[in-house]
Amino acid sequence: MVVSVIGHGRVGTHLQKALRQAGHEVVWLSGRDFTPDEVRGEVVIIAVRDDAIADVSRHIGNTTALVAHTSGSKPLSTIEQKRRGVFYPMQTFSKEREVEFKEIPLFLESDTDMPLLCQLAESISNNVRELDSENRRKLHLAAVFACNFTNHCYALASQITEEAGVDFSALLPLIDETAQKVHEMSPIEAQTGPAVRMDMSVIERHESMLSGKAKDIYHLISESIYDTVRSKEN
Amino acid sequence: MVVSVIGHGRVGTHLQKALRQAGHEVVWLSGRDFTPDEVRGEVVIIAVRDDAIADVSRHIGNTTALVAHTSGSKPLSTIEQKRRGVFYPMQTFSKEREVEFKEIPLFLESDTDMPLLCQLAESISNNVRELDSENRRKLHLAAVFACNFTNHCYALASQITEEAGVDFSALLPLIDETAQKVHEMSPIEAQTGPAVRMDMSVIERHESMLSGKAKDIYHLISESIYDTVRSKEN
Repeated sequence: MVVSVIGHGRVGTHLQKALRQAGHEVVWLSGRDFTPDEVRGEVVIIAVRDDAIADVSRHIGNTTALVAHTSGSKPLSTIEQKRRGVFYPMQTFSKEREVEFKEIPLFLESDTDMPLLCQLAESISNNVRELDSENRRKLHLAAVFACNFTNHCYALASQITEEAGVDFSALLPLIDETAQKVHEMSPIEAQTGPAVRMDMSVIERHESMLSGKAKDIYHLISESIYDTVRSKEN
Repeated sequence: MVVSVIGHGRVGTHLQKALRQAGHEVVWLSGRDFTPDEVRGEVVIIAVRDDAIADVSRHIGNTTALVAHTSGSKPLSTIEQKRRGVFYPMQTFSKEREVEFKEIPLFLESDTDMPLLCQLAESISNNVRELDSENRRKLHLAAVFACNFTNHCYALASQITEEAGVDFSALLPLIDETAQKVHEMSPIEAQTGPAVRMDMSVIERHESMLSGKAKDIYHLISESIYDTVRSKEN
């Protein structure tokens, strides 16, 4: 299939590569300075930041192609073309790291072209599902907790290990095991730590070692862990 | 070596097993109802909850053995015996899951018996270091962020995927990649998501989808991510 991918960011970069590797002919364009006559193919994928999707769709203008965006949080209606879709890969992409696209969950939506979109998605991933805009928006929010906020917990931990004179790499076996555990049990079952039993002697000492937002985060998440574990018990 | 392990909880269970597998003779006792005459061996490891360590040490009473506890947050001085130590395995243990003890970082402290403690530790782990009480307490705090708080982010994400009608397992490739990334780059470099660029249209919509402590956590961590990324740029 001939596919245009618009966007030179992380998602566009990884997506055009996966499509090429699956044997598609890919036209890869920059979201900032493409001209409508460069856009070709049966499917056009807009992989630009959320706020620019509507502008890019408008700039493409009239086309017989299916036009899809890759955003978790923007609705299908962000695309102005009649043949429209969403092609949301739920993964964290870095320019420097290869990812195995076959395992990335792809969430699709279209009111005109589900079979075509599905065919394209299944050529690069074994993990393809249909999901509407409202539930996709929820899923994107879940991804923010599971990825972005998790990574920030790592970042706060790395600042503390540095203060302790220990290399961050000492935490990697713990980080890996924490991720592996939830393959086998639910995160609520997997929960450990002083907040589970509201061990105030440990919690108060920890809070006394922190300052600023890290201290507020410690307090709030500890309370939330306790509430969550307790609501499961009741 | 003959080693007594006191404590039938998660740490005690995994530790006595690893010690047996390494060829030691292990006397495994319950922290609640052992009698001092049952305690034998050159090393006695107290693997009970933080608040019970001092009581267990007192109950053991006079002994020529080295007595060590396994707590990240309690100081060496919690042990009342003259030959005393700390043997802190930094990992999250579950009763149901096997762990590869060889890869677990073990942090040791002793003012009387470092060589003996080190010999015992190196028989079960390839990752043994010395660390004093103050820095171990910091490290334990880092572990709370990297493990307990990370797991709570998974738990909040699981509640949201449930509302979206999507199985939690859809998040596993994202969770695994988030953990894998910090093997190759620092968590600050790995940070992605709407908070990095304070994308208020996404952040405000996300906050409107949340309530209670999850909403407060979203707001606070987003601000903390923005501060962290900005302080790195400056």
